[in-house]
Amino acid sequence: MAKTKRQIHLGLFLQGAGHHVAGWRHPDAESGSENLDLLQRLAATAERAKFDLLFLADGLTSGSDAHPSMVARFEPLTLLSALAMSTTRLGLAATASTTYGEPFHIARVFASLDHLSRGRAGWNVVTTSYARTAANFGARHPEHDERYAIAEEFVDVVKGLWDSWDDDAFPKDKAAGVYADADKLNILDHKGKYFSVKGPLNASRPPQGHPVIIQAGSSGPGQDLAARNADIVFTAQQSIEEAQSFYKSQKERVAAHGRDVDSLAIMPGFLPVIGDTFAEARDKLALLDGWTDPTNAMPLLVERLGHDLSGYDLDGPLPELPVSDQLQSRAKLLTDLAKRENLTIRQLALRVAAGRGHHIILGTPVEIADRMQLWFEERAADGFNVMPPYFPGGLDDFCSKVVPILQERGLFRTEYEGTTLRDHLGITRTADRRGVA
Amino acid sequence: MAKTKRQIHLGLFLQGAGHHVAGWRHPDAESGSENLDLLQRLAATAERAKFDLLFLADGLTSGSDAHPSMVARFEPLTLLSALAMSTTRLGLAATASTTYGEPFHIARVFASLDHLSRGRAGWNVVTTSYARTAANFGARHPEHDERYAIAEEFVDVVKGLWDSWDDDAFPKDKAAGVYADADKLNILDHKGKYFSVKGPLNASRPPQGHPVIIQAGSSGPGQDLAARNADIVFTAQQSIEEAQSFYKSQKERVAAHGRDVDSLAIMPGFLPVIGDTFAEARDKLALLDGWTDPTNAMPLLVERLGHDLSGYDLDGPLPELPVSDQLQSRAKLLTDLAKRENLTIRQLALRVAAGRGHHIILGTPVEIADRMQLWFEERAADGFNVMPPYFPGGLDDFCSKVVPILQERGLFRTEYEGTTLRDHLGITRTADRRGVA
Repeated sequence: MAKTKRQIHLGLFLQGAGHHVAGWRHPDAESGSENLDLLQRLAATAERAKFDLLFLADGLTSGSDAHPSMVARFEPLTLLSALAMSTTRLGLAATASTTYGEPFHIARVFASLDHLSRGRAGWNVVTTSYARTAANFGARHPEHDERYAIAEEFVDVVKGLWDSWDDDAFPKDKAAGVYADADKLNILDHKGKYFSVKGPLNASRPPQGHPVIIQAGSSGPGQDLAARNADIVFTAQQSIEEAQSFYKSQKERVAAHGRDVDSLAIMPGFLPVIGDTFAEARDKLALLDGWTDPTNAMPLLVERLGHDLSGYDLDGPLPELPVSDQLQSRAKLLTDLAKRENLTIRQLALRVAAGRGHHIILGTPVEIADRMQLWFEERAADGFNVMPPYFPGGLDDFCSKVVPILQERGLFRTEYEGTTLRDHLGITRTADRRGVA
Repeated sequence: MAKTKRQIHLGLFLQGAGHHVAGWRHPDAESGSENLDLLQRLAATAERAKFDLLFLADGLTSGSDAHPSMVARFEPLTLLSALAMSTTRLGLAATASTTYGEPFHIARVFASLDHLSRGRAGWNVVTTSYARTAANFGARHPEHDERYAIAEEFVDVVKGLWDSWDDDAFPKDKAAGVYADADKLNILDHKGKYFSVKGPLNASRPPQGHPVIIQAGSSGPGQDLAARNADIVFTAQQSIEEAQSFYKSQKERVAAHGRDVDSLAIMPGFLPVIGDTFAEARDKLALLDGWTDPTNAMPLLVERLGHDLSGYDLDGPLPELPVSDQLQSRAKLLTDLAKRENLTIRQLALRVAAGRGHHIILGTPVEIADRMQLWFEERAADGFNVMPPYFPGGLDDFCSKVVPILQERGLFRTEYEGTTLRDHLGITRTADRRGVA
């Protein structure tokens, strides 16, 4: 593909009950992460607006104190396979853990999704942060850096399995009786520190070669994993300065691996609260914040800090806390935010309840487009993972009011140019073992 | 549901490249287990014919000597989620191993499929027979009876996870701010010999309460697992006498567990080769057998016997072999078949290549309907898992020529009476922990 003008990439971060913890209580909200009809309409809206992809987070625990979008939800790969049937261009990316999964299963489901969607699959590679997940798998929870060492090897195995068969390994020649060509089979035979996987995978090579790889950890080991493997980095950044610093660091690591820095798109989470005036947007957020039950907000904060806060005055400052093993970069982001804005524990919990540490932007459609343009042009972002506070209204507003402004400014596509997620990102299909792309 | 006249249940055993190992070479065959367009048409055909369900086998290995339907194929749960979007009544059942999976993941994907399909999911519980699978999971392969002990506990955990939330656990009351009701949450906290799983599952209770459970092992431990847990038993039976004996044994075990014997449907595999005359059907099978490459047929036999046959004369008799740890009941079935019909190793391999040990029936539509009626009325079967030798023609013939005869005889439904797979099977929704169905 010829190199064209740099444009913004847009992801729809889909959570049925909204991103704001009280989003589902908005009068216009249709709630439910198990509401297929709603999710199909949201995917269609994102595709009409020419988004690059739809993005699903995931987790392997539940509880009545969990975020409403997370307490009960579709399993991501089954949901995306269903949504692949009602869309034709939209990329479909799901989170899957390298801490509580098997490389063979993961390689297989993403290959299957890539086939079903004709080249639109993306895998958000995560390590599972929360130690309580181990209790659902009778397992020991590995510590932070070990989780990343496991993830590095896990990704290598998955990529190797995707290459089990060359692109043209299945001649299906009726006359000659050759269905599969044994000469085009690559036995991985991986024997590593954490995994021993022989292969081959029971799937032909995915339409994209390799499905798109997304990485969403912003710690040092997370950035290194991304530098080596990722096509997209999803990150949480509170200010343009922090985002620029992260962007620079991540791109330097990409260059250090001998990769084209433009082959990796950095997409911070962006929670837009849209009003016809700034005051209207502010009031909308205040309304949602007003509905936020502190008993729901505090577990979200505690979970992200990795420290119990009981015994501290909710209206006092955040105490000094040692670095948690859970979410290193997110905990630091929240601690820095509390310091910088002088927030009480209660105020910080409310901020987490609204956007879980992602950038919340209030304003008119023009103001929001301006902020996106600024971050994009100032190299704080290559695109954004858009997190509507509630659905479907929050997405409808963004698509009908903000996207057209970005398009008018030439910052965002008005038509898809290709059919695969790799096409949308402007990156080539991964070549097979013989180097034929 | 009021008890009505006993009727045949029909499953479509779906394998994209056909069941006969050379089925894909038939001039009318469209081949490919990764051919979504074909699979969608086949599902639509089965639904138009009012089949109870579509059934997917599975395996976790591959190789260029594998059956063409198994060498590269969609992962079952992603495929069924896609097919759920183009069907509205057809049950959707997938095989998933209890030997190389985690109860939390399995509970979750089947709950998700049940939600996506609005109550049409079925789980075919299997233990993985082939020791070589272990090499894809860096694991030790457990022996036969241990695999069943693991499976028993695995199923208990999955059922417990499906009951994590009562049916009405999600009031989503905007005014009161109650999304999930903590009082309706059941923490499983399972600590067993093989699994330790706390729960809860991050999915609301499936539309069917529990997705339908299928069991496909015919050894003693397999029958016991089915007697306690299964709604459908899928089995391979060569003759009506063997089928009746199995049927009687399985139903007695069901009764011994205090269950209604009619709540479990026994469905042998049935491979119909249809002609306008018997001779035409016979010639059709001969054509397929003639295309069968012995180098493809032998691995299928060896795999099922669990014994290497190199060194034996292919045109001599099957040697006496000790019981294999792999597929106990299937190995016995094939050994008995070879003895009864005095088959050479080559002839037995050909039989396995055609139907993998399932009952092959040649004839006119009337002859095939007669055989099905006989097996059904003589309590050799409650229904059949139909295995067309090639697609789409083999299924089209069965649906357009055999199904109408069964319907005219009042042996098979002409319309769906309900919407869920449980409805089609005439079994009730599983009640939640408080006993409310």
